[in-house]
Amino acid sequence: MSSKIMSYSYDEYFEIVRSFHGSPAPGALIGGFMVDLAVKNLPEGILYDALCETKTCLPDAIQLLTPCTIGNGWLTILPLGRYALSLYDKYTGKGVRVFLDVNKMEPWQEVRNWFMKMKPKKEQDSDRLYREIREAGQDLLSLRRIQIKPDFIQEKKKGKVALCPKCGESYPVSDGNLCLGCQGSDPYL
Amino acid sequence: MSSKIMSYSYDEYFEIVRSFHGSPAPGALIGGFMVDLAVKNLPEGILYDALCETKTCLPDAIQLLTPCTIGNGWLTILPLGRYALSLYDKYTGKGVRVFLDVNKMEPWQEVRNWFMKMKPKKEQDSDRLYREIREAGQDLLSLRRIQIKPDFIQEKKKGKVALCPKCGESYPVSDGNLCLGCQGSDPYL
Repeated sequence: MSSKIMSYSYDEYFEIVRSFHGSPAPGALIGGFMVDLAVKNLPEGILYDALCETKTCLPDAIQLLTPCTIGNGWLTILPLGRYALSLYDKYTGKGVRVFLDVNKMEPWQEVRNWFMKMKPKKEQDSDRLYREIREAGQDLLSLRRIQIKPDFIQEKKKGKVALCPKCGESYPVSDGNLCLGCQGSDPYL
Repeated sequence: MSSKIMSYSYDEYFEIVRSFHGSPAPGALIGGFMVDLAVKNLPEGILYDALCETKTCLPDAIQLLTPCTIGNGWLTILPLGRYALSLYDKYTGKGVRVFLDVNKMEPWQEVRNWFMKMKPKKEQDSDRLYREIREAGQDLLSLRRIQIKPDFIQEKKKGKVALCPKCGESYPVSDGNLCLGCQGSDPYL
């Protein structure tokens, strides 16, 4: 097991997470080991996309350590509620899935308490939690080869845009005669 | 109009975008001016959340320039297909919405061509596009005060987790008897 996270030392990665994510959240730290394990199990030099099965913490690890971000479209979040990520060849959909494996947590009880929400946050021993995360590294993880379904890897073309006749802003005409906001999805009063 | 983007010079921001986003995409550059304008129109010292109305480029400007990221939950993407973002007080939902305003593009024809997709990418004059983006700065933008709907600012509690009896991974019990992946949403073959 390597204690490096991509090109960073653990301490460097800890600070990068703190700066971007706002705090050194346990999930984002473990996420660093997850990304590292996934990348090391991909063929070298391929262009890959990322799929993240949770909205919580893990997307930030992916964005910090890979070329995949939400804004460039290489990272997709599919909120299935599982602490797992997949990296896969952009063209073939072949890749790897890494998940945080409860079956490997026996030696790491404080990680287990945190992950399974077995203690209220106030009762967690956070010193022990951070020590266990660092010591466990990739020992908490499992990996399997995956093939992404073809409809998931199709390039989404955005098509023509027009001005919405109601709000006057640009929107994709494939959304209909009005933009989605003016069709009722506006989150504003 | 300031040529600074938050605490960065334009050139510094250009490089930060290139590094995180993978390329200095026009939308991400304009997004920097959008975030800067929005932040300057919020009361100082408040805790704010971000809402981004498009998945394309703009979320990365928000993540690079504010404390709001996808992974920490302070940034929400609501894909309405409009090039707009809102920043608002976490507790009251009061804030500002900034959008790229087609009505202000008359002096910036290459920005207009790009934004309204009036030319195939190959025919765009990218030197002129980059020059216009930099010169226009916030002159391409409009801002209005907004109030987010109350159901949008409610804190989403995650609740209890359990092991999915099918795949064995941890998932939120509120999703049902199986995790969402095992209920049929798995993107894998």
